[in-house]
Amino acid sequence: MKLQNIKIVMAGTTHPGNIGAAARAMANMCFTRLTLVDPQCPVGEIAYARASGANAILDNRDTCNDLASAIADCNCVIAASARRRSLSWPELSPPELADKLIDMNDTAQTALVFGREHSGLSNEEMQLCNYMVYIPTNPDFSSLNVASAIQVLCYEIFQRQAIVPQIVKPIEKQDMPVEHSELEGYFEHLQNVLQMCEFLDPQQPGLIMQRLRRLYLRSEVTRNEINILRGMLTAIEKQRG
Amino acid sequence: MKLQNIKIVMAGTTHPGNIGAAARAMANMCFTRLTLVDPQCPVGEIAYARASGANAILDNRDTCNDLASAIADCNCVIAASARRRSLSWPELSPPELADKLIDMNDTAQTALVFGREHSGLSNEEMQLCNYMVYIPTNPDFSSLNVASAIQVLCYEIFQRQAIVPQIVKPIEKQDMPVEHSELEGYFEHLQNVLQMCEFLDPQQPGLIMQRLRRLYLRSEVTRNEINILRGMLTAIEKQRG
Repeated sequence: MKLQNIKIVMAGTTHPGNIGAAARAMANMCFTRLTLVDPQCPVGEIAYARASGANAILDNRDTCNDLASAIADCNCVIAASARRRSLSWPELSPPELADKLIDMNDTAQTALVFGREHSGLSNEEMQLCNYMVYIPTNPDFSSLNVASAIQVLCYEIFQRQAIVPQIVKPIEKQDMPVEHSELEGYFEHLQNVLQMCEFLDPQQPGLIMQRLRRLYLRSEVTRNEINILRGMLTAIEKQRG
Repeated sequence: MKLQNIKIVMAGTTHPGNIGAAARAMANMCFTRLTLVDPQCPVGEIAYARASGANAILDNRDTCNDLASAIADCNCVIAASARRRSLSWPELSPPELADKLIDMNDTAQTALVFGREHSGLSNEEMQLCNYMVYIPTNPDFSSLNVASAIQVLCYEIFQRQAIVPQIVKPIEKQDMPVEHSELEGYFEHLQNVLQMCEFLDPQQPGLIMQRLRRLYLRSEVTRNEINILRGMLTAIEKQRG
């Protein structure tokens, strides 16, 4: 599935800020196609301000009079909802939605449909959809902002699709965890210094050294860090003379 | 882990709409605690309009002058970032963050920290954090709106919490990560001792202290361990006489 084959459809949106915020959310997650169905507000200064640079999405938006025309070319239409419907609709969770889209053919056209700020999608509009995706929310405060709902679903699809360019962080040798033997060398040095400082009882170094081992082992100490830690011990020894 | 033990911290926010939108996003996902650090705007009509009914979160917000005071009582502090840092910080993906929080003790206090709209978090602020969570985004349009970032992370945590059976691991108090202020006390003590030993250049403690901070922050030092570490420093001081 290609992200450019998924269109975000906003039906009857009343606030231009939400259209702009939706464009920004889409751009953040590599979505490009926005369709407005019967928008109830102009797409002007307020929308562009909230888009915060995602102008291309607003410039290239489609506008349709009704949902049926907006989705006429789509192979799969999914309605987003923050509330469950009394009429049970085939329901996907956001991760299930993402998996479903990822499994689709590269040429499949898909629409994710978002309803009006106050009244959502009408029953007639729901009838046009193959699935409903339900974003889990607080049952006592379930109304998600429409642009936030778009953000959440675009994020789910984007991150699952693993088209996240695998920016392989080249790890420098000094930032890799050291070999175990180096750590043992450090523990030995540490124990000597702590005995010298009479912090450890030479007869009973056990429990404290065990706890210190656990601390540093779980930290996966890097070469850079072990050099600092060893340098500290050497400095303490020198002070002692 | 309890959602009410996770505070959302917004540092230096400049737009009241973002504070309101953050409150709404939090309420949608059952989060309740909002802390503003040095806010650059009033929390008035615009914020309440965008909160869309999540008034209790705005009414009950905390306000602090700096990040250190906001997180002083926290056992774990996580910075949200949409960009990777040059100095590699222990990094979590949003699902890893959710898993980590879910595994935590019910009494652990956690902060999720979000930076300024244009400049994010300062390096000094990053130094206070145990982890960074990186929300994957389009590399060519990576700047997420701050309320959208809050929405995405709250959603991840809420939905994972709902699906993961609550296996409560009883953790003894001495094995929990210490409060942040305790760790700061240790860093101060450590720096003093290292200067005394002439390991640190008093003019230039910077880089080495930064690296040591990073090591211990990522280790989530427990009370038992901090007692040992402080004891070591005191023993070294006594040797010096």
